[in-house]
Amino acid sequence: MQKHIISALVVNRPGVLAHAAGLFSARGFNIDSLAVGETEQPEFSRMTIVIAGDEAILEQVRKQLDKLIDVVKVQDYSNVPHVERDLALIRVHTSVGRRSEILELVDIFRGRIVDVSRNDVMIELSGTEEKIEAMLDLLRPYGVREMVRTGRIALTRSARE
Amino acid sequence: MQKHIISALVVNRPGVLAHAAGLFSARGFNIDSLAVGETEQPEFSRMTIVIAGDEAILEQVRKQLDKLIDVVKVQDYSNVPHVERDLALIRVHTSVGRRSEILELVDIFRGRIVDVSRNDVMIELSGTEEKIEAMLDLLRPYGVREMVRTGRIALTRSARE
Repeated sequence: MQKHIISALVVNRPGVLAHAAGLFSARGFNIDSLAVGETEQPEFSRMTIVIAGDEAILEQVRKQLDKLIDVVKVQDYSNVPHVERDLALIRVHTSVGRRSEILELVDIFRGRIVDVSRNDVMIELSGTEEKIEAMLDLLRPYGVREMVRTGRIALTRSARE
Repeated sequence: MQKHIISALVVNRPGVLAHAAGLFSARGFNIDSLAVGETEQPEFSRMTIVIAGDEAILEQVRKQLDKLIDVVKVQDYSNVPHVERDLALIRVHTSVGRRSEILELVDIFRGRIVDVSRNDVMIELSGTEEKIEAMLDLLRPYGVREMVRTGRIALTRSARE
């Protein structure tokens, strides 16, 4: 099933998030990821939802979302040229003598080491889903101890006049 | 009021997000940011919530959250050594002859240009809240057209033996 990235500009008010999440769960949609953060206007937040599901039902939910009183604008990025990014913090086990191999990988993927102890390092990595997955595939053999991810955010690309 | 960063490890099932968001909105808490994404285990997601509010009521909500059937573990990072990161995509207006000034700033803050047109650039920037705010303060005079942010994620630092 195609993944959809849906963005909603919402008014900062208690309840809007619970309402929006309720719309999706009422239809049995499981949300792959969700990111809610500040925008260029202090009174608004932007929710970015990644979801897979039946196209027709998703379109209904999108419309219901658009009708919520605190939702200003809803956009589906699926068929629009856009930039997507995700952020991960990854704690990886570093066995004796193998730390330098991990540092090399971090360098190649333009990640950053943000914490280090005798037995592990914490890596900050931002990029596309594919880039993060590629790095994770290479890190797993060392032992991925813990990971937290923001989920994807997106913005439309500017038209090239 | 002190900001709290609360993390919840949850089972990937429809409804858990709506439940959790409902707990906070029922008490009138407005969520500053929320990020829900994958973890090192495919069956779990991690929710990271940034929230300000009365300490005692927040502690109640934290306990209620911990009791939800699909919530595995709740952690408040407030008094624990941890690493925090946020990610932003920022579209900035570039007037004639001033693009190079913006590129300089992006370089200093170790951001990346991810899209460019005749009149604007899109910047990817990850880092602490303070770093992103500092960059935004310097970008605002040029004209911040659009911004989307993931909200914060966090992991505890490793003990230094």
